[in-house]
Amino acid sequence: MENKNYTELSSLGEFGLIDHLTRHIELKNKSTLKGVGDDAAVLDYGEKKILMSTDMLIQGIHFDLTYTPLKHLGYKAVASNVSDICAMNGIPRQITVSLAVSNHFSVESIEELYAGIYLACDHYGVDLVGGDTTSSKTGMCISITILGEAYAEDIVYRNTAKENQLLCVSGDLGAAYMGLQLLEREKAVFAGQPENSQPDFTGYEYILERQLKPEARIDIIKLLKEKNIRPTAMIDISDGLASEIMHICKDSQVGCTIYEEKIPIDYQTYKMAEELNLNATVCALSGGEDYELLFTAPLDLYDKLTALESVSVIGHTCKASAGYTLITRDGNSFELKAQGWVNFNKPETKD
Amino acid sequence: MENKNYTELSSLGEFGLIDHLTRHIELKNKSTLKGVGDDAAVLDYGEKKILMSTDMLIQGIHFDLTYTPLKHLGYKAVASNVSDICAMNGIPRQITVSLAVSNHFSVESIEELYAGIYLACDHYGVDLVGGDTTSSKTGMCISITILGEAYAEDIVYRNTAKENQLLCVSGDLGAAYMGLQLLEREKAVFAGQPENSQPDFTGYEYILERQLKPEARIDIIKLLKEKNIRPTAMIDISDGLASEIMHICKDSQVGCTIYEEKIPIDYQTYKMAEELNLNATVCALSGGEDYELLFTAPLDLYDKLTALESVSVIGHTCKASAGYTLITRDGNSFELKAQGWVNFNKPETKD
Repeated sequence: MENKNYTELSSLGEFGLIDHLTRHIELKNKSTLKGVGDDAAVLDYGEKKILMSTDMLIQGIHFDLTYTPLKHLGYKAVASNVSDICAMNGIPRQITVSLAVSNHFSVESIEELYAGIYLACDHYGVDLVGGDTTSSKTGMCISITILGEAYAEDIVYRNTAKENQLLCVSGDLGAAYMGLQLLEREKAVFAGQPENSQPDFTGYEYILERQLKPEARIDIIKLLKEKNIRPTAMIDISDGLASEIMHICKDSQVGCTIYEEKIPIDYQTYKMAEELNLNATVCALSGGEDYELLFTAPLDLYDKLTALESVSVIGHTCKASAGYTLITRDGNSFELKAQGWVNFNKPETKD
Repeated sequence: MENKNYTELSSLGEFGLIDHLTRHIELKNKSTLKGVGDDAAVLDYGEKKILMSTDMLIQGIHFDLTYTPLKHLGYKAVASNVSDICAMNGIPRQITVSLAVSNHFSVESIEELYAGIYLACDHYGVDLVGGDTTSSKTGMCISITILGEAYAEDIVYRNTAKENQLLCVSGDLGAAYMGLQLLEREKAVFAGQPENSQPDFTGYEYILERQLKPEARIDIIKLLKEKNIRPTAMIDISDGLASEIMHICKDSQVGCTIYEEKIPIDYQTYKMAEELNLNATVCALSGGEDYELLFTAPLDLYDKLTALESVSVIGHTCKASAGYTLITRDGNSFELKAQGWVNFNKPETKD
C-alpha cells in the first residue's frame, strides 16, 4: 500500500523530533518566562503556590492503540493531569511531556499524539514547557508532569473532610468504564474481520467519548468559585468512586454513608451495563477514568449544591467508627469496599 | 534457590507500593508545603523563579540491568535531572518520579532503586514530592521531573554567549563513555561464564563510577558563585562535548575554536581508550553522560578561571562565520561536528 505520509522517526533524530514537535508552541501564561529550548523551563510565580503532579501512561496497560486514536490519547493524557490540579482547587499552568516510542511509529503518528496534547493545552490554558523524547524497545510510554497554581487559602486537600458533611460528585460516573467495555467487545468481535468493516457504535457515542476523550472538570472548579462554594476536601475520580471516597474518608478519619439512588449514572451507561449483564452501580463505584470530582462540603450548602445541574449530593460523612456504608435502592446496607461493595449478591440480613 | 527477600509486587498493589516507597520521606525544604500524599504537591516560592526539567530513562536504551545496580540507576536518574538545574545556574528543590515496571521485579529490587533515588535526594538537598507507579508489559521506564529555583538575574541560558569569550568545562570528559565500553566488554566476555566468576575492574574504578554513579556539578555552581564568576551561557554535557558546544554556539549565533590539548581527560580514560583502540579525544567529544558543565565567560576572567582546579578553559568563541574549529595537538584544524570531528584520519590540508 502506498503511504506518502510516512517519515521514519530516525530521519529526524532526537533533537530534530523535539524541535519538530514544539516549534509551533505559543506561550499563553505570563508566568512562563521560558518554555522549551533550554535545560529547564523558567516560571514566574508571585504570591501564588505551585501545584505539581505527574502521570505515566503505558501502552498495553493504560491504553490499547487498536482502538485508541493517538490524538485522543494525547488529549486524555493532558486532561488526566489537569484533573489532578482541579482536584486541589488549582488552576493548571504548565506541563512537561516525556515520550518513549519505538521506531515502529511514524513521525505523523507522533504528530497526531501531540496534536491531541496541544488541543488539550489550548482547551485548558496550559503551556507545554519541556520534555524528553526517546526511543523504546517496545511500545509507547507517556509521562506528563503538570504545574498549577492557587492561593494557599484556596487549596483543598484530601484529609480535611469533617464529620456530617455532604459528599458530592460532579457529572456522572461509570461511563468511561462502560465505553472501555464496549471497545473491548468490538475489538474481540472484529478480530479477523475484513479491514474495511467498521463496528457500529450508534447510540453509544457518549460513553465512547467518556473513555476516549474525557474532560477535566475545570468548569466545576470555576463554577464552585463563582457560587462561593469552597469544598472542605476534594479528589478526582480516576480509580472509581468507592476507592476515592475511601481515600478522603481514611485521610480525614471520617466514615460515610452514600445512597445508590443518588449516584449519577448516564442512560447509555445503564443500557450498556444491561447489554453486558453488569451492575451499573458497581461500574460507577469501581470503574475508573471518569475524571469527575468528588468533594465534601458543609451541610448548610445543601440547597446551593443541589441547585447545580452538574453536581450530585450522593451522601454524607459521619464518625469514622460507623465505617463506610452504601444504602441500596431497596434500602439494604452494604459495607463499601474499594472494589464495588462487599457482596454482589443479596445481603443475608434481609428477607 | 531459596530467596527469602522476595515479595511479589502484586502483593502490595499500586497504592501500597507508593506508600511503601515514600513513607520515610522527610521534607527538607521550607518551600515544600505538601509532598507525596495528595493529587499534587504544594510548593511555596516567593521572589524566586522556578526551574522545571524532565528526563525519561528506558531499560535497554539508557541502561542495561545486566551490569547496572538498581541503586546506582536511581542515583544517576536523579543526578542527571539535578544537572539540568545546575546548567541553568539554579538550585534543585523538588522532584517527581514516575516508574513503570513489570511484575518480574521484586519489591526489594524497587526498594534498591528508590534507595539510590533517596540517596541522591539527600546528597543534592532535593525533596521527592510526588510520582506515579505503574506496571509495564516489558522492562522498566523511569521518568523524573525536577523543579529548581533561582533569582531571575542569576539564571544562565544557552543562547547568551558572546563572541570572544572563554569556553570552559568542569571536571574531565569521556570517562563515563569509557566506563560503558568497559562494562559492555566485560558483559560480552562473561556471557556464558559460571555464575560466580567476577570481572576484574582493578585500575578502572574511576571510569566505572563515572558511568554508574555520575554526580551533578552543583559544587561548581556554588564555587562559581563564591568566586563571583557568572557564566554568560551554560549547558550540561549529557550528549558529548561537541554536541553541547554546538548547542551553545548555534543558539548564541557565535562560532568557536577549541584546543584538543586543553580538553580534560582522565588517565583511566586514556588507558581504556588505548586498550580498545579508540581515540580518547573523540570519546570526550562524542561520548555522553559526563554531566559536566560547559559554559562561556568573559575573557577578563581567564586568570580567575584557570586558577580553579576543577575548571578547564578549552577554547573561545568567535564570529559565527568562522564556524566551529578544533585545533589538534599537532596544530591541524578540523571542523567540529556533533559526532567527534569530521574526519578521524589525518586531514588533507597538511603533510
